[in-house]
Amino acid sequence: METLLYDQNVELTTTQTMKALVYHGPGKKAWEDKPVPTIKAPTDAIVKIVKTTICGTDLHIMKGDVPTVTDGRIIGHEGVGIIEEVGKGVTNFKKGDHVIISCITSCGKCEYCKKGMYSHCEDGGWILGNLIDGTQAEFVRIPHADNSLYPIPAGADEEALVMLSDILPTGFECGVLNGQVKPGDTVAIVGAGPIGLAALLTAQFYSPAEIILIDMDENRLVVAKTFGATRTINSGAENTIDKIKSLTKGKGVDVAIEAVGVPATFELCQEIIAPGGHIANIGVHGKSVMLHLEKLWSQNVTITTRLVDTVTTPLLLKTVQSKKLQPNQLITHHFKLSDIVNAYETFGNAAREKALKVILTNE
Amino acid sequence: METLLYDQNVELTTTQTMKALVYHGPGKKAWEDKPVPTIKAPTDAIVKIVKTTICGTDLHIMKGDVPTVTDGRIIGHEGVGIIEEVGKGVTNFKKGDHVIISCITSCGKCEYCKKGMYSHCEDGGWILGNLIDGTQAEFVRIPHADNSLYPIPAGADEEALVMLSDILPTGFECGVLNGQVKPGDTVAIVGAGPIGLAALLTAQFYSPAEIILIDMDENRLVVAKTFGATRTINSGAENTIDKIKSLTKGKGVDVAIEAVGVPATFELCQEIIAPGGHIANIGVHGKSVMLHLEKLWSQNVTITTRLVDTVTTPLLLKTVQSKKLQPNQLITHHFKLSDIVNAYETFGNAAREKALKVILTNE
Amino acid sequence: METLLYDQNVELTTTQTMKALVYHGPGKKAWEDKPVPTIKAPTDAIVKIVKTTICGTDLHIMKGDVPTVTDGRIIGHEGVGIIEEVGKGVTNFKKGDHVIISCITSCGKCEYCKKGMYSHCEDGGWILGNLIDGTQAEFVRIPHADNSLYPIPAGADEEALVMLSDILPTGFECGVLNGQVKPGDTVAIVGAGPIGLAALLTAQFYSPAEIILIDMDENRLVVAKTFGATRTINSGAENTIDKIKSLTKGKGVDVAIEAVGVPATFELCQEIIAPGGHIANIGVHGKSVMLHLEKLWSQNVTITTRLVDTVTTPLLLKTVQSKKLQPNQLITHHFKLSDIVNAYETFGNAAREKALKVILTNE
Amino acid sequence: METLLYDQNVELTTTQTMKALVYHGPGKKAWEDKPVPTIKAPTDAIVKIVKTTICGTDLHIMKGDVPTVTDGRIIGHEGVGIIEEVGKGVTNFKKGDHVIISCITSCGKCEYCKKGMYSHCEDGGWILGNLIDGTQAEFVRIPHADNSLYPIPAGADEEALVMLSDILPTGFECGVLNGQVKPGDTVAIVGAGPIGLAALLTAQFYSPAEIILIDMDENRLVVAKTFGATRTINSGAENTIDKIKSLTKGKGVDVAIEAVGVPATFELCQEIIAPGGHIANIGVHGKSVMLHLEKLWSQNVTITTRLVDTVTTPLLLKTVQSKKLQPNQLITHHFKLSDIVNAYETFGNAAREKALKVILTNE
Repeated sequence: METLLYDQNVELTTTQTMKALVYHGPGKKAWEDKPVPTIKAPTDAIVKIVKTTICGTDLHIMKGDVPTVTDGRIIGHEGVGIIEEVGKGVTNFKKGDHVIISCITSCGKCEYCKKGMYSHCEDGGWILGNLIDGTQAEFVRIPHADNSLYPIPAGADEEALVMLSDILPTGFECGVLNGQVKPGDTVAIVGAGPIGLAALLTAQFYSPAEIILIDMDENRLVVAKTFGATRTINSGAENTIDKIKSLTKGKGVDVAIEAVGVPATFELCQEIIAPGGHIANIGVHGKSVMLHLEKLWSQNVTITTRLVDTVTTPLLLKTVQSKKLQPNQLITHHFKLSDIVNAYETFGNAAREKALKVILTNE
Repeated sequence: METLLYDQNVELTTTQTMKALVYHGPGKKAWEDKPVPTIKAPTDAIVKIVKTTICGTDLHIMKGDVPTVTDGRIIGHEGVGIIEEVGKGVTNFKKGDHVIISCITSCGKCEYCKKGMYSHCEDGGWILGNLIDGTQAEFVRIPHADNSLYPIPAGADEEALVMLSDILPTGFECGVLNGQVKPGDTVAIVGAGPIGLAALLTAQFYSPAEIILIDMDENRLVVAKTFGATRTINSGAENTIDKIKSLTKGKGVDVAIEAVGVPATFELCQEIIAPGGHIANIGVHGKSVMLHLEKLWSQNVTITTRLVDTVTTPLLLKTVQSKKLQPNQLITHHFKLSDIVNAYETFGNAAREKALKVILTNE
Repeated sequence: METLLYDQNVELTTTQTMKALVYHGPGKKAWEDKPVPTIKAPTDAIVKIVKTTICGTDLHIMKGDVPTVTDGRIIGHEGVGIIEEVGKGVTNFKKGDHVIISCITSCGKCEYCKKGMYSHCEDGGWILGNLIDGTQAEFVRIPHADNSLYPIPAGADEEALVMLSDILPTGFECGVLNGQVKPGDTVAIVGAGPIGLAALLTAQFYSPAEIILIDMDENRLVVAKTFGATRTINSGAENTIDKIKSLTKGKGVDVAIEAVGVPATFELCQEIIAPGGHIANIGVHGKSVMLHLEKLWSQNVTITTRLVDTVTTPLLLKTVQSKKLQPNQLITHHFKLSDIVNAYETFGNAAREKALKVILTNE
Repeated sequence: METLLYDQNVELTTTQTMKALVYHGPGKKAWEDKPVPTIKAPTDAIVKIVKTTICGTDLHIMKGDVPTVTDGRIIGHEGVGIIEEVGKGVTNFKKGDHVIISCITSCGKCEYCKKGMYSHCEDGGWILGNLIDGTQAEFVRIPHADNSLYPIPAGADEEALVMLSDILPTGFECGVLNGQVKPGDTVAIVGAGPIGLAALLTAQFYSPAEIILIDMDENRLVVAKTFGATRTINSGAENTIDKIKSLTKGKGVDVAIEAVGVPATFELCQEIIAPGGHIANIGVHGKSVMLHLEKLWSQNVTITTRLVDTVTTPLLLKTVQSKKLQPNQLITHHFKLSDIVNAYETFGNAAREKALKVILTNE
């Protein structure tokens, strides 16, 4: 009823329009006019996008791999912006506040949110740019704004904070925290794409002795070195398992972080894990993998999976403010938001373009 | 060199003989004469067996499934006994002390032992009745006795304590602790054999709300009920997944303990686990299993494997002394040690004989 | 301004009245007419009290010991009831729902709430019957209802659930969880009043080997035995330290729970704690205590304090539903709500009346 | 009997002598001849000292503050050396091995050692240079050598590793681990002496946002800045509590590490700790302190004490090898071992001499 009322208002007043990137089925997208979103529930906020980015998941959506995304949906689940309007139930924010938009929507009051497992929020989770319209637009509606937005401290580098919407909490929570990285550990990260590199940056919070990055793209391995990898292995050119075994005196690594999402890389993690070690999966897998319990049953290993909860966003923000973490290292390209179709082209050819994350600015 | 010296001594004195159960290749075993073991290292103890038992693993050995066990080996890795002699380096025990023999030998000074991961001790681990002679004999030599034996308190029920050699720490460490059972949890235990029942008994330390036992053997499910299962599911007669889903409002269980060791039961654990849940593997697997990462990648699950470390033996001993745990519930049959071949016959037909654990007494 | 508006409305409509227990300064209280509370914020709920109780803290308030409580305040922070009305922002509850009222109000969206430390909620914490009107009344307004109320399952014993408002989470969180009670532990609880007994009931979730209750009131020690204490010590009649030392072979207890709140009992905890042990303070202290760092600095002890967060209410509810916890054991007396002045008289003379918790029913 | 035999041998052969620093009662010490120590138990090793140092505790001993140290005792509990001889039970080391000597002797087989609480080892703990002769000598006997010595990797900077005998594990275990320092935390370290600085160096393993060092010695605060302190407060010149409150928006610090050992500094920790915070005591206290439970009872704080266990020595060694930790930062002065009396003079006037740790080399 309340929603109806709002919809009526929208129709009665002159509907404002904005530009947004809209999905129109596999392979089809357009930068087109859409109505500016309006408050639908008292806990909503409308945010004017300042900067956003493109995620690997968005590429999957565009291919038609994510069936929950339907024709007409505005894509995107990352960004920073300025509060345009808040519902009557929003108390943490007001018009004009600068905010980080979390990729995960959290109601703060369901069983899962109370446990800090926002990814499975009963009225949220990953819905932005998936079940509801997203951030690759001039404006976005954020439900449960008090729990799903984070205030940007005065003077912060807002562009860098776009990396806190998704990629850094993902690398940190699913990879580093689940992998239980400790001082002195030997850590292998399989996959040196943006997510693997986010795990690399945040693994250093815990001072492991070795962080070994494994990938087939030599350029990414060079980048990994500059981001703090102590060693790199080009798995296309070297025998990864032999090399890891020789580096670890035959024992294997304490933590293996899977940041690709295909059977071969998960298989590799099983081969290189030491007794008592942790395999932390970040990759979005499309197929089952073989789990070698005939070997692992006695190896005291722990395997974890996780959809990012973004429960560590406040912690990450503190590490950015204190310069322990420099998220802008992940940014390689800049575009105007209105030039997003070209940005997709660049990001979609990441290896060729040497692209990690692209920033889209709403000018 | 030192060892050589000892061997010479043995030959010079009259070698004493004892009776022991000896493996002679697949399908062949004999209750026959063997030399009484002697101290080989200053940290050894010789223990006179008072009571021992047979493990499911021993049945596998007898079939030839455990290639590390060779012709001539005395089998058995469980039991209680009385110290007959100690090496000069043993300080925790003296002749006449009553002891529990741990199935895991721990040196107490390697990297793994210092971490409490005795199962991977660099000079121990599971060697008893495997790489060295075991406990199904009148005497046994226990290396690293100070760390591998536990004193039996005066007045304790020694027979019950045979269950502390292997089965109870296995169910507790690999199943309950790794599964992180908490008050109020819903726990499923797949497999109601001795190991599953050991997990059932020790899961109750943490007051879960529900413990659901799943098996195809109706007799075992009846036993499980008397041991504290709040529900049982006969997976041969009912649709287990549907039933679990209906019991948990579609959510699944917080903890799934795999206590069988075949792909189908591990598969079942994946089907019934709730988001955020723990799958704790106890089963000794002979084959790989499918891991459904295409579904689980986003479910925040934790999967663990473990060879028992027996690091909880002192804790378990306290729970036995305080009657929180009554291990003799697991004992169904008694034999004289000299009647061990019949005991194997009974234990090898556990379902027909309604056997859980058999006690062999050295009279 | 919004509040003003509501107040105006209240004056414009016919104000409904109810009966409530009102504090009028030290030593003065009255069961008198007050306006029925109304919704002030969209996240509020109005609850019709079904059953409530009196807390030791209420006695302190009545003496004038709690300066934040001012003349005219309705007292009480425990109870169960039925939702009468909800604000527009409340989604977990609707009119007619049966609920447990938590003694702690939690907004679910401040820094502390997100950490599970509801006791320090920036817009809540312990405010009921303290900074805002409480539950010893026919109706109560509950702010942040979605996060501060808990649904009562159909068929539950509602009277028993009054114990989940405060006393059981307090004993459990501040005593048992902070004390890190483990299977096989030796636990001492100093003070066998309602809070100490709540710790006793919930400590049993973790199967300690010994739970020793210490008090000077013989009647309470008798009750403690029936609630599961393995031993009791009358500290007025026996040398407590000597007795504990003799029970623990000179070592002391693994966990000491302080449930009184005076220097002497905290002192006792320091005397009886084993190396590596935990002292968990529950008591509300009015004075500083001596901390014997000259002795404890090398003893690897942990001392904790905590105002209850009620973050375990869902867990406790599951243990009640599964009969692991029977909160009605704590209830000794029943009164009509309108007879609350007499109930205070009984509860205020707890030793003489052998009173633990009294139930007040709004008939 | 075996001991007797060894003692006889010593008398029968020509007793070898060495130089050592010997305590002769309060205020009296001498660099004098003592017999070279010999193997007394099969688990002993004799180590030739290469480098040693002086600890603040040694100064206390020299003043007569440590009653367990008696006339004739060789002082010192830190150092690196070369194995001269091992008993028959020692298997981790052989003559010629380079080793770190731990200040804590651990048998590896008592209840406390099995829990990783080596400080309370039933046949060890802090005995070196206390109950048995210590390391400020040309040779030292190390009991339970397998568990109390650590191998020095080839090519390591041995001098730096002297800091792993005591000071770094103490700062790390008692301060940083007990304080549960996390990424993004605000940490205060009260006392910028060697122990406080050791906590500062190792706190950085966990990437806190702020580490505030508090001391009255300006020189030490300057050093602290170069060691990674983000801020310093001269508590003699500034109002520490006000400054901390203003730095933390009135909230206080997440972790307060007490590294002095007097009532005033422990008092300060209580004043500056945030709700939910950790106070980790490292200081060796001679007197009781006031614990302000009247304020802290509701603040959800954790207070810990600990005698260093040295259980993290292997971890610390890995961080040194990987350059995450550079212990030689703590070394300010060098002396020949034979010049130890002068070294005591310098170290005893640490403020004037700007001394942190002194290295004594056995040339």
